[in-house]
Parts: sequence; structure tokens; C-alpha cells
Amino acid sequence: MKNHQFVIIGLGRFGSSLSKELVQLGYEVLGIDKDEEAVQDMSQLLTHAVVAESTDEEVLRSLGVRNFDCGVVAIGDDIQASILTTILLKDLGVKKVVAKAMSELHGRVLEKIGVDRVVYPERDMGIRVAHQLVSPNLLDYIELSKDYTIAELSVPKCLDGVSLQALNPRAKFGCSIVAINKPKGIIIAPSAGDVLTEKDVMVVIGTNHQIEQFEASVTR
Amino acid sequence: MKNHQFVIIGLGRFGSSLSKELVQLGYEVLGIDKDEEAVQDMSQLLTHAVVAESTDEEVLRSLGVRNFDCGVVAIGDDIQASILTTILLKDLGVKKVVAKAMSELHGRVLEKIGVDRVVYPERDMGIRVAHQLVSPNLLDYIELSKDYTIAELSVPKCLDGVSLQALNPRAKFGCSIVAINKPKGIIIAPSAGDVLTEKDVMVVIGTNHQIEQFEASVTR
Amino acid sequence: MKNHQFVIIGLGRFGSSLSKELVQLGYEVLGIDKDEEAVQDMSQLLTHAVVAESTDEEVLRSLGVRNFDCGVVAIGDDIQASILTTILLKDLGVKKVVAKAMSELHGRVLEKIGVDRVVYPERDMGIRVAHQLVSPNLLDYIELSKDYTIAELSVPKCLDGVSLQALNPRAKFGCSIVAINKPKGIIIAPSAGDVLTEKDVMVVIGTNHQIEQFEASVTR
Amino acid sequence: MKNHQFVIIGLGRFGSSLSKELVQLGYEVLGIDKDEEAVQDMSQLLTHAVVAESTDEEVLRSLGVRNFDCGVVAIGDDIQASILTTILLKDLGVKKVVAKAMSELHGRVLEKIGVDRVVYPERDMGIRVAHQLVSPNLLDYIELSKDYTIAELSVPKCLDGVSLQALNPRAKFGCSIVAINKPKGIIIAPSAGDVLTEKDVMVVIGTNHQIEQFEASVTR
Amino acid sequence: MKNHQFVIIGLGRFGSSLSKELVQLGYEVLGIDKDEEAVQDMSQLLTHAVVAESTDEEVLRSLGVRNFDCGVVAIGDDIQASILTTILLKDLGVKKVVAKAMSELHGRVLEKIGVDRVVYPERDMGIRVAHQLVSPNLLDYIELSKDYTIAELSVPKCLDGVSLQALNPRAKFGCSIVAINKPKGIIIAPSAGDVLTEKDVMVVIGTNHQIEQFEASVTR
Amino acid sequence: MKNHQFVIIGLGRFGSSLSKELVQLGYEVLGIDKDEEAVQDMSQLLTHAVVAESTDEEVLRSLGVRNFDCGVVAIGDDIQASILTTILLKDLGVKKVVAKAMSELHGRVLEKIGVDRVVYPERDMGIRVAHQLVSPNLLDYIELSKDYTIAELSVPKCLDGVSLQALNPRAKFGCSIVAINKPKGIIIAPSAGDVLTEKDVMVVIGTNHQIEQFEASVTR
Amino acid sequence: MKNHQFVIIGLGRFGSSLSKELVQLGYEVLGIDKDEEAVQDMSQLLTHAVVAESTDEEVLRSLGVRNFDCGVVAIGDDIQASILTTILLKDLGVKKVVAKAMSELHGRVLEKIGVDRVVYPERDMGIRVAHQLVSPNLLDYIELSKDYTIAELSVPKCLDGVSLQALNPRAKFGCSIVAINKPKGIIIAPSAGDVLTEKDVMVVIGTNHQIEQFEASVTR
Amino acid sequence: MKNHQFVIIGLGRFGSSLSKELVQLGYEVLGIDKDEEAVQDMSQLLTHAVVAESTDEEVLRSLGVRNFDCGVVAIGDDIQASILTTILLKDLGVKKVVAKAMSELHGRVLEKIGVDRVVYPERDMGIRVAHQLVSPNLLDYIELSKDYTIAELSVPKCLDGVSLQALNPRAKFGCSIVAINKPKGIIIAPSAGDVLTEKDVMVVIGTNHQIEQFEASVTR
Repeated sequence: MKNHQFVIIGLGRFGSSLSKELVQLGYEVLGIDKDEEAVQDMSQLLTHAVVAESTDEEVLRSLGVRNFDCGVVAIGDDIQASILTTILLKDLGVKKVVAKAMSELHGRVLEKIGVDRVVYPERDMGIRVAHQLVSPNLLDYIELSKDYTIAELSVPKCLDGVSLQALNPRAKFGCSIVAINKPKGIIIAPSAGDVLTEKDVMVVIGTNHQIEQFEASVTR
Repeated sequence: MKNHQFVIIGLGRFGSSLSKELVQLGYEVLGIDKDEEAVQDMSQLLTHAVVAESTDEEVLRSLGVRNFDCGVVAIGDDIQASILTTILLKDLGVKKVVAKAMSELHGRVLEKIGVDRVVYPERDMGIRVAHQLVSPNLLDYIELSKDYTIAELSVPKCLDGVSLQALNPRAKFGCSIVAINKPKGIIIAPSAGDVLTEKDVMVVIGTNHQIEQFEASVTR
Repeated sequence: MKNHQFVIIGLGRFGSSLSKELVQLGYEVLGIDKDEEAVQDMSQLLTHAVVAESTDEEVLRSLGVRNFDCGVVAIGDDIQASILTTILLKDLGVKKVVAKAMSELHGRVLEKIGVDRVVYPERDMGIRVAHQLVSPNLLDYIELSKDYTIAELSVPKCLDGVSLQALNPRAKFGCSIVAINKPKGIIIAPSAGDVLTEKDVMVVIGTNHQIEQFEASVTR
Repeated sequence: MKNHQFVIIGLGRFGSSLSKELVQLGYEVLGIDKDEEAVQDMSQLLTHAVVAESTDEEVLRSLGVRNFDCGVVAIGDDIQASILTTILLKDLGVKKVVAKAMSELHGRVLEKIGVDRVVYPERDMGIRVAHQLVSPNLLDYIELSKDYTIAELSVPKCLDGVSLQALNPRAKFGCSIVAINKPKGIIIAPSAGDVLTEKDVMVVIGTNHQIEQFEASVTR
Repeated sequence: MKNHQFVIIGLGRFGSSLSKELVQLGYEVLGIDKDEEAVQDMSQLLTHAVVAESTDEEVLRSLGVRNFDCGVVAIGDDIQASILTTILLKDLGVKKVVAKAMSELHGRVLEKIGVDRVVYPERDMGIRVAHQLVSPNLLDYIELSKDYTIAELSVPKCLDGVSLQALNPRAKFGCSIVAINKPKGIIIAPSAGDVLTEKDVMVVIGTNHQIEQFEASVTR
Repeated sequence: MKNHQFVIIGLGRFGSSLSKELVQLGYEVLGIDKDEEAVQDMSQLLTHAVVAESTDEEVLRSLGVRNFDCGVVAIGDDIQASILTTILLKDLGVKKVVAKAMSELHGRVLEKIGVDRVVYPERDMGIRVAHQLVSPNLLDYIELSKDYTIAELSVPKCLDGVSLQALNPRAKFGCSIVAINKPKGIIIAPSAGDVLTEKDVMVVIGTNHQIEQFEASVTR
Repeated sequence: MKNHQFVIIGLGRFGSSLSKELVQLGYEVLGIDKDEEAVQDMSQLLTHAVVAESTDEEVLRSLGVRNFDCGVVAIGDDIQASILTTILLKDLGVKKVVAKAMSELHGRVLEKIGVDRVVYPERDMGIRVAHQLVSPNLLDYIELSKDYTIAELSVPKCLDGVSLQALNPRAKFGCSIVAINKPKGIIIAPSAGDVLTEKDVMVVIGTNHQIEQFEASVTR
Repeated sequence: MKNHQFVIIGLGRFGSSLSKELVQLGYEVLGIDKDEEAVQDMSQLLTHAVVAESTDEEVLRSLGVRNFDCGVVAIGDDIQASILTTILLKDLGVKKVVAKAMSELHGRVLEKIGVDRVVYPERDMGIRVAHQLVSPNLLDYIELSKDYTIAELSVPKCLDGVSLQALNPRAKFGCSIVAINKPKGIIIAPSAGDVLTEKDVMVVIGTNHQIEQFEASVTR
């Protein structure tokens, strides 16, 4: 798995963050942007960074883009360039192409021209932040299905010193605490005798409704 | 908790997604943008949507912004407007102000002027997508700490029909499967006899290294 | 066949010429352009002409675009609008969608998203005019295959008064004269006794090489 | 005829297509455009391609434009440049000058200043595509006169296996089939015994009305 | 002669000065400009002043331009608009069309499309001012031919009190004084006894060389 | 007088025409413009032509502008640059400064800051052309005073073959013919026996009213 | 003195501050700006505020500008508008005209066209702030002459509790303390027995050198 | 005190005036602006002047900005750049940071992010000029407190030859004359016998009301 090589086209906020993380995870990344300043800013951080017009087939060809395992079209605001670059990556034979969509309609076109995955960073982060805003203790979460969620919740003051036995969320709300992240380490599958403190973070699985009820009862 | 009211300033991709999600979660949302078209697009979906210049104190005052529990400055690309709007919200007495930052430097200013939380949607999504790209089975994840992660992984073909007993990830890799999401329902804290099938999704807790090792061994 | 209805999006030089010809051929045409002046100029000539943003699904829906038999995306220079409009027409259920492409790459995208026919007006006219420039007598032509062509040639001075028998192009060059357009009427399948005059136009079928040889010999 | 040399001014979609076709037909072409990128794109394909301001008499003179047999003013959207370039070509003594017109009024000026031929690529292609849209079997056509046309029609399904004798279009509709393009070769002046198949293309001569009637009867 | 009507298109510095003078000379003037402010400024001074796009045939027709005896195209800096407006005036049947040219090349086009007179205000004034700069006493002049000029010269100090007999320019320089403009009135065909004073202005006819010599001798 | 040197600032239509005429009259001219192309076009024709920002005192100083006898500020459309350049020329000690004014208000400022002469090329040419338009035979004229004019008139057809004795304009209209420009040479102070022909041009002195009457009577 | 009326043209930062102060001092102020928003912002604060083009004589006349005692041309960045407005105010008969200059050259023009006083706000404030930066105790100052200054200095810690007798600046440095501003009131012409405290501010008169020496000795 | 070093960011009218004064006062100044021309103009006058983007942390670091005692953010019109530059100077450890504010809101942000002093040059000069306009004799002034002022007043004609004893402002108006600036030198703490002359300037301390009364009585 470690020999993947990525070509990232578009080094804006999303593309540069993605590129830097890939490099930190140990992968080789070629970053491409038509803006010289954007490339300059990333040139020290990426394996390669070049100024190039990604809608020019010859340019992509000469950069050897076809040899990359995965291409990400992270172009910021230019839908036309995003679409044309995507079709070129597919036609050049890049195995997996991921593209960022600015709108649902843009996403539809990307899917029609054969992109392997469409991402909507701002839309997804909007949803994620909305959930965090309405649940003050919610740190992060995974939607397992339409109904079920894993939530990472900070332990509120009123639960400080309470044991799982006393709290018993499974009996009262139907949801389970599958892990407690304590300053001194993580307890996976905690037992009834484990005690919560205010600095802990608990990981809860349940339906959205169960978690909401649980959180409401302990937050007040 | 249900009587929270939100004012969202900036109805671009991030702000409009955030606003819509809050409305769907049952909250009242006042959306503000200086662009008429952006407001038009959201006017049906939000409680209120108005065209207004958010850097004008009188305007914000006349909209009654001070009465909102929480304000989100989701302004897209105008750092100046973002900063001036944020300080106005704070000075008007909005209890909690969250602001989107375009860069780390922008974020530093926002913190200095007293914002309660700074969000970096594109940067965070860039990191999230990077992880998903390098782990083909990784659907989503929560970083519990610098070391520990909860990962939502699709069950690969080679684990189809394998029981947890046979798989035994805790013994082999140190990580635990805390839930299995099966088409017919979620199994929380699964037992050794539970059997994985290709359509299942498993929720794994462990250190980054443990999960990586586990995933590498089952993906090949 | 006479009950076809056409919606033409983009009323530039190509789109307006196409629209006017369709109206003259007896069809109903709805013309759409985002430029008010372009619509104004065509409003008297078309069945309906409206100013509208064709990349907005709601707008197209409210114009009843789905009820049209055929849509032509004749947008001039905006590749993004061309692509987004095209996918909307297809998704709304327009049976046949024809689109004008600005470049070969644009054409590839249009085909991928399911357009029924891509036209390249400027490219095709460039080719057609090139042929006319190099053959002074060539008025028009149809390429039947890679090799065979029907050419409409004006009769040069040196053939004035020459009978087909004397000329005998089939024997000398391999190509046939299938019609002679004379001031007083067209002779289809002319006989050996028919005589050419300088005001005539002859229709010749043959390979490109045969016609070229024929034309070269009679033009000098 | 093969020693013609062409100077093409304006290397947009029409001009570049025209230039490339002329080169493929074996002629020497000097391409001129004031846009460096346009010239770059064509530099490999044409005999010569230079970046130059075509409204500057000295520039044209120094390029030796006067020695060319034929000049084509294919300037895209700048009517002023088109007119000034055209008069310079004429004044410099280029024997034949062809110019592309953006509008009927532009065309009138070009004719007044002595251009040898005005072409309207988008208008002409609009008309051509209109005809093809309303006659699904129509592949191409030549207008011989206001009334007479040669049409290249694909053979519809219902004529598969029908002999010309049985079809007898001359008797029924007044139009004649002068050629049949079959996969295995072209039959010129086909005889009554020749049989149509669905993959064939037939070339029909007749009045517009006759061909329309013929097509309508066989398409249904 | 007094029933002439003028339509002036373009109300810039040249066009508005021309229009105002025509009105002061007692003629009717319709002023047209596409700029609302320019029209506003002239609306009180001209018979009629309208905001209109002069390159639109319908607009000119509806303004009844065809009924004017003389049209002046005084458009400032837009060569295209100047040419298109000029051809429209000619085609609409305006008897006499005068047009201002921005350059010699522009002038050539105007002549080819049938303009009755081309004027070059800035060029002509440049020449006129040049002559006045080099001859400090030269107030105005008419070039009668390549060689002969009528010059209006202020009488220099050194000629104060000198009689024409004493001065005798015809004998000394070959040029004649045909009139003396004195404060108390003009003396036409002055006699030898007439005496010049410093406030007088003399009108001299002669060759350029003669006048130059005369002026040089009396200016020193 | 021949050792005058001129610096002309602004090489637009007026300034370049003025500069060229001065050079042709034998004077040295330094042309200055901030536009490189304008300078390029004049560099062959003037003694010196430089690209420079004329509102920068140091620049003018380093060009030695103070040593010129006369400076002409012929800047086209930038009133600010015209004013600032003018005051710099005066302050640097240029003896005579002439400036072109765009409007009456601009002219007032120029006079206040000490310019020696203000010229209004477009306004003056507008007046001149107006007079020529209303008097078809008027070729040129000099306004000697508010009342008196010298007019250069082409001889109309109806005067062909008429002698001055028969015509007798002085008796009939009060104006005098002071010269006749004939193809074979100029007759100054013509005698009663001289005969006009249609190709001649006559120079007439008189009041505006006299000349108008004279012209009206002979033009009809 | 209280019946002065001011017209302020240009309501930017300088003009609006000036206008507001004049109103607070009890004078009537008419504010004029061509920018609607600037006028809107001031409309509540000034006697009158109107949107108008100040370079149009008719406009100024209709606003009755001639009746004002004093006009201030506070136009921000448009030198041309500043000059033209100034000459119009003078010509309309405004008694006193003050104008803000953007540069020394601009100031020279303003003086030539008769402005009564030229102010350079940014330049003057730059100088003032420079002095305050280098003397940390310097609060404000008046330059009485090239050598003498009155300085308002905060009393440094080291002088807390020191009597004027002990300090004796006149003897030691040559400068005099003419007033001490104490929290409880100002002591004018303080006596030797008055004692300084850290919260006081002292007003010192002397030569620049004396004050500098004094300040240096007490600041360390 | 003399070893202070200043870095001035923004070399517009305020920043360049400030910089030049600091240099004249004997300090070292590094001037920074992103506009090349602004830097060019100051390069001879400052210790160092560089073209640089002040919102780029790396750039400021490499210029050694951290070693300066005092930084002044004098950026003209770009609020964003002003804020980002200010926070960078603070974060880099510049001891004292002064910043120019464009508006009160901008000033509030600057204070929140820790600026040591905010200056409003145009606002302050507007106030200062207002006072001078309403008091014709007022040359300059220092506001000691809300009530007390030191005013520098020119001696009006009516006080020419009047002794301080006769004038006695302290008795009549409550204010004191603490100095008289006479052409031959300054008299500090003048005695009753000192006589005013018209060329003198007097320095008066008192309440605003006292000085106003005094000035009103002597000005009339």
C-alpha cells in the first residue's frame, strides 16, 4: 500500500491540506496548480510541485500523470477546468480519480464522465459543524447509518465521579459507551466499575435519538 | 437545548450547508449575505434570509443580531469582512461566535479578537480525505487522541464469512472491533461468534499503528 | 414529422441562424439566452424567446423544457454553461440533445454526459472553405466516404460547348457527371449528347483523386 | 494549382481548422494571430505561424504578405481589426482576399472595401444543422438551386431489402437515386435491380418537395 | 440653402462644437450619441438630441435619418462604430455623409465605403498650430496651393508707422499685401500711401518662401 | 528663428501631427509620451522621442526640458497630467508653453497656472467644418474680425467663362476678389478683364453677410 | 463669527472629520460628495449633505455654493477633481477656499489657481507622529518657530514628588514649565513650590534642544 | 534614546512623511511597501527601503523585523493587510507597534490584537483644521484636557501697540498669555509692560470658553 503515488491538481486550501497530509502519511505527491504563488508555497512541502495548465492534455502527458495511481482534482472555483482536467486524467489512464465538486450539478457531471469519487468538502464540513454547534459536548462523530451514530462526547461536569454502573446509559437510553478516553490512556469496552471524570471523553454508540436523549439528560 | 437560535453570516457552500443542516435539526436560523442571489437561493430553506452588509454595525443591530445565542461567520473569501463582522458580533453581545478561517494567520487574528471557535473546513476535509485515499476500506474515522483512532472500515472480500474468533484482531494487532454494522442492524460489542460478511462495516478502536497493520493484513 | 418542437439555448451567430432556419422550415422554436439583447433581436422571429439562465434547473423546468422533442445547446464561448445545460436537458428528459463544442476536449465531455450529437460549426466550415479555396470551381461538396465525394462544380470556360461524349470523364478520369444544372432546369442522369455551357453547374461523383484530376485538367 | 500559398489571419476555431485543412491538402500556409498562445498551438501544424498585429501595414509588409496568392481574414470577434486588415491586404496587392463576417452589416462593409468573398461560418452551419435536425436520415446535402437539392440519406430500416425497382422513387416522388454508398463500395447510377440494405447511404436528386415527400414516406 | 438639416452622430468635443456652430448659423441639427451624459449636455443647444446606438439600422430608420440632407459621423474613438454607422447612413440614402477619421487607414476605409468627405480634425489642427508656433506673427492662414498661401500676420513693432510704399514687399520679397485690418476698419487692396501701425493685422499673399522671407526680415 | 527647439508632450493624433509638421518645417523636436507604442511610432520621424512620465519633475529635468524654447502640452485625455505637466514646464523655466485644453474649465485652469496659449483643436475644427458644410463652395477661410472674412471659394459652374467685369461683386455685394487661383498659376489683384473658369478658386474679402449673399447668388 | 457657513466637498476620512467638528463647534455645514454612500453616512450629522458632481459648474451654482463664507475642497484621491472644483469655487465667488493637497506638486497648482490655504493632512500628521514616537513622554506640541517649541509632556516616574524648585529646568536646561495639568485642575505659571506627580502633564516652552535635553535627562 | 530603529510598513503620504521626519530626527528607518514605485521614491531618503509583501511572515522574518524597537503599520487603504501585518509584528516580538486606522471599527480590531497605539491621521487633522477655520487667528493649539487648551494666536491689528497691562486677559477673560513670539525672539512669561505688535504671535492658556471669548473680543 505504501507505494501509492498521488497527483493533486489544485493547491488551494483543500488541495494543499490534502497534499500535506498525504506527504506526512508517507506518500509521494505531485502538486499542480496554474498559480505560481500557490505552487511556490507548497514547493518545500511536496515531493514535486509544478506550475501547469491542467486542461492541456500535452502538459499532463509530459508530466507523466498517467503513471500515478490516484489523481485528485481539487480545483477551487473553476468548474470548467475541473471537468476538463477530470476527463483528461481518466483518458490518460489514471486508475483512480477523485474530484471536488462545487455544487450538486457539478457533481453529477463529474460522475457522468467517470470520476471514481466526488467530494464536497464545504458541504460536508457544514453538516459536521452544525452537529457540533447544537451539541456542545459533541467533539466528533461517525454516521454509521441513517439511524446509528458513534459520538465522541466530552464528559460534562455533572458526570464527574459517576461510575458507568450508576450512569447505565444502555438501560436508560439504549446507547452504549464503547470507550473512555482518559488523560492516562484509553479504556476500550469499559466495565461497569469504571468511573468518569470531567476531563474524560467518552465514545458512545446508539441511534441518533438515543444519543440525543442521553446527551440532553446529562448536559442540563 | 431546542430553543437555540443561530445567525449565519455568509451563505456560500460552507455557510449554506451549515444553515440547512441546523434547520433540519430543528433550529431557527437567520442567514445573512451581501449577495442577493445567495440569499434568494436560501430564502425558502431558512427561517429568515436577508441581504445585508455585515460589516455595518447599524445593520446588524437593526437585524436584532444581539438576541441570537450563537453566530457563525462563514464568510467565504473576504478576510477583512470576516474580521470586522466577528468583532461586531462579539461587541454586540452574541454569546458564542464561531468563525471560518481562510488561513492560519487569519485564524490567529480571529482568536485574538475573541472568537469562541475557529473552523478550517477545507483544511480539515483535506486531512480527512487524505486518510480515506490511503486506506481504501476506511469510510470514516474519529481521532480520539494523537495515537488512538476509531475507524469505520468496510469488510473486505477476504474476510467474508470469517468469525471474530477466527479473526481475533485484539490478539493479533491489538485493536478491537466494537461494533459491526450489518444490513439487518447494528451489533454493538459483538461476540466471538459473530461472523463478518462482505456487506458489513466494522467499527474498530486502536492505535493508528494497530489499525494500519490490521487493515494492511486484511486488504491484500 | 411536422410536430417537432425545438428548444435552442444560446442565440449567438450559430444558434440564431439555426433557430431562424427551423422556423422557416415550419417548426416551433423556443429560444433561450441569458443576454437580453440577443433575445430581443430574435423575439420577432421565433415562436418564443426568453431571457433565462440555462444552468438553473428550476428555470428550465418552469419553462417546460422537458416537453420538447429536441434541444440544441448552442452556447457560444462558455464551456461550463454548455456542459451544465446539456446535463440538465438530458436529466429533464429531453429526447434528443445536440450540442455545439468549442474544442475536441469539450466534445469528449459532451459525449460522456450523453449528448446525442456534437457539432463543431467553425471547425467544419473551416474544412469546407479550405476545399473551396483550393478548387476555384468547387461550389459545394458532400464527402460520401473517406475516398468518394460528390462535387458541385461550375463549368469552366474551356468546356463551353463540349458534349459529355467528347468530355467522357468516366473513361478519362473515372468519375461520372450525374446531373447538370442549367439555367433552364436540371438534367438528371445526362446523356452523352448533352452539351455543357459556361453558365452550367455539373454534379460529379468519384474518388477524391479522380475529381481532382478531372478538375485540374479542365481548369488549366 | 499546387503552388498556391495562403496567408490566414486569425487562428481561432475557424481559422485554425481552415489552416490545418489547407496544409493537409498540400498547400503552404502562413498563419498570423496577435495572440501568442493561438500561434503556439498552431506552430507545429502550419508552414509558418507568427505573432503579429495585422492592422499594422508595416508588419504585414515585412512579413511579405503581398507575395501570397490568397489571404483569408478569419479574425474572430473584432470587427474593426477585420475591416482594417482586409483593406490592408487588398492595398498590399493580395490577389484574392476572403473574409469572415460576424454580421450582415459587417459583410456589407467587407464587400464595399473590395473583398473577393465573404463567408459566414456560423450562419451557414446553423442552416445546415437545422436541415439535418428536421430530417433524421439526412446526412449532408448540396443546394443546387432554390428548388433542387442533392441529399445524402441513410437508408431507413423499412427499406432494408427493397430493390430500386420496387421503390421506384422517380415514379412515385419525382426524385432520382444517383448513387448508393454500400459498405463494400459505391454504386454510381444504380440499376433497377440494385437492392438497398439498412447500412447503405443513398444519394438522391430532386426538388426539395420531392425529397421531403420521399423521405417522409420512407421514414414513418 | 437655409433649409438644410444635419444629423450629427457623436457628440464629443469635435461633434458638439460642430453641432453648436451649425445651430448658431441657423440650421436644424439632430445630435445622436450613445452616451446619455453627452446628450444631456447638448439637449438645450440643439434642435433635437437623442441617446441612440448608431450602429443599429432599425434605430437610425426610426429616427428618420434618411430625411436629412447631410450626416456627419463624428464618433470619437470607436473605429468600428464609425465605419458601421457610415455605411448605414449611406445605405439609408443620406445625400452627403462626412466622417471623422482617427487614422489614415481608417480614412481609407471610409473612402472605400463611399463617404463624401473625410476630416482629420486633430491632424489638421496639429499642422495649423505648428505653423503658428514657428511664425510668432502668424495668426491664421489659407493654403491656396502647394506653394501659395494667404497669411494673416500681426504687424510687428518695427513696422509701426511704415508706409506700404516704404515697405514695398512685392518688390523686395515678391508677396503682396491685399488687405490691412485696422482697429477702425478693413482696408481692402490698400494703396502705397497706407501706413501700418502696431495694432494692425495685414493679409499677405505669396509663395511660402516669399512670405517666410518677408516675415523673417520684419520680425527680427 | 530657425534655432527654435520644441518639446512636445503627448504624441496622440494632435501632438504627433504637430510634431511631424514642425520637423518638416525644419525644427528640432523632442517628443515625449508615457505610452511606448506612441513613442515607437514617432521615433523615426522626430529628432528625439522618449517614453517618460511627464508629471515627474526629476524626469523632465533629466531630459533637459528647461533648455527648450517652447513646450507644447498635447496630452490627450488626462486633465490631471495636462495640468501637472504644464506647471512643471513653467516652473522649469520653459519660455513659452502652449497647452491643449479638453474643456473650457480645463482651459481656465491652464490660464491661471500661467500657460502662454491654450488651444482647443477639436472645438476649433468643429467650427471650421461647420462653415464648410453649410457653404459647399467654401474651401477654407480666415476670420479677420467679428465681421470680416477672407474666403477661399471654388468657382461654381454658373460662373464658368464670366469675367470679373461682368461679375462685379464689389458693386453688387460689396465684397472683393483679391486673388484667383488658376491651374496655370495665381493671379493676385486680378483685373476686370480676368475670366473665371470652373476649375478656378477665388479668394474673396468682405463682411460675412456680403460673402454669404455673393455665394448664395452664384451657387443656385 | 458664529454666522459662518461652510461647504465641504469630499466626505472621506479627512472631510467627514472636519465637517463633524465644525458642526459640533456650532457652524452650519453643507457636505458634498459624488459617492452616495459617503453622503448617506453623514446625512444625519451635517446641516445638509448632498450627492453631487463638484466639477460641474451648474451643479455648484444650483446648490448656492456662492453664498458660503468658506469652502473646503477635501477630495481624497482625484487630483483633477480637486483642481477643477477649486477653480469653480473661486470663480463662483466663495470668499475663502481651503484645499487638501495630495502632493507638493498638487499644492503648487492649487496655490497658482488662487486657493487661500493648502493643507497636507497626511504629511503633517506623519511629522507629528514621528515626534511623538521618538519622545515617549511627548503628548503634543506646537512649533512656535524653527527653534522654539511648546511641548506637552507626561511627567515620568522619576519626577514623581519632585518640586519645581528641585527640578529647576530653567537653570539646568534653559526651558520653562508654564503650566502643570493635574488631575484636580490646571496650574498656570506654577510656582517653585508646586510638586509634580506621575499623573501630571507639564507644559514646557524652550528651544528644541533645551526640551530634548530636559526630556532625555528625566526619561532615563 | 538615539539608538531606536523604526520599521515603517506602508509608504503612502502618511507613512512616507513619518519616515522622512524620523530620518531627519536622526533615527534609522527601514521602509517597506509592496508597491515598487513607492519604494523607489523613498529609497534615497531612508536608511533602507524594500519592496515586500508585509502579510507574509517569512518575508518579515527574513528582513529581520523582529530586531526593530518600533514598528509602524501605515498601510493606506487595505484594512486586511493592516490587520495581518500588525499581528505578525506583534507575534515576531516587535516591542512597540503603532498602527494607522481607517475607521473606528478598524481601530477596535487593532486594539484587540494588541497594538500599542492607534493613530487616525485624517480624523485628527480634520478636527485640527476645523478649529483653525473657525478661529482665523488660531495658528495651532494643544488640547490639555476636555476644557483647557493652549492656543497659538497671531496678534490681530487692533492689538498692535497694546501692553499686556492694558489688555489684561486674565482679569477680563480668565486666560493667561504665557509667551509672546516676537520677530526678535520669544518672551517667556511676559511681564505687564510687554507690548504686543501686529507681527507677534501670543501663546494663551485657558479654558476653551475663555480663549474663545478673548479671541472674539479682539478679532472683531
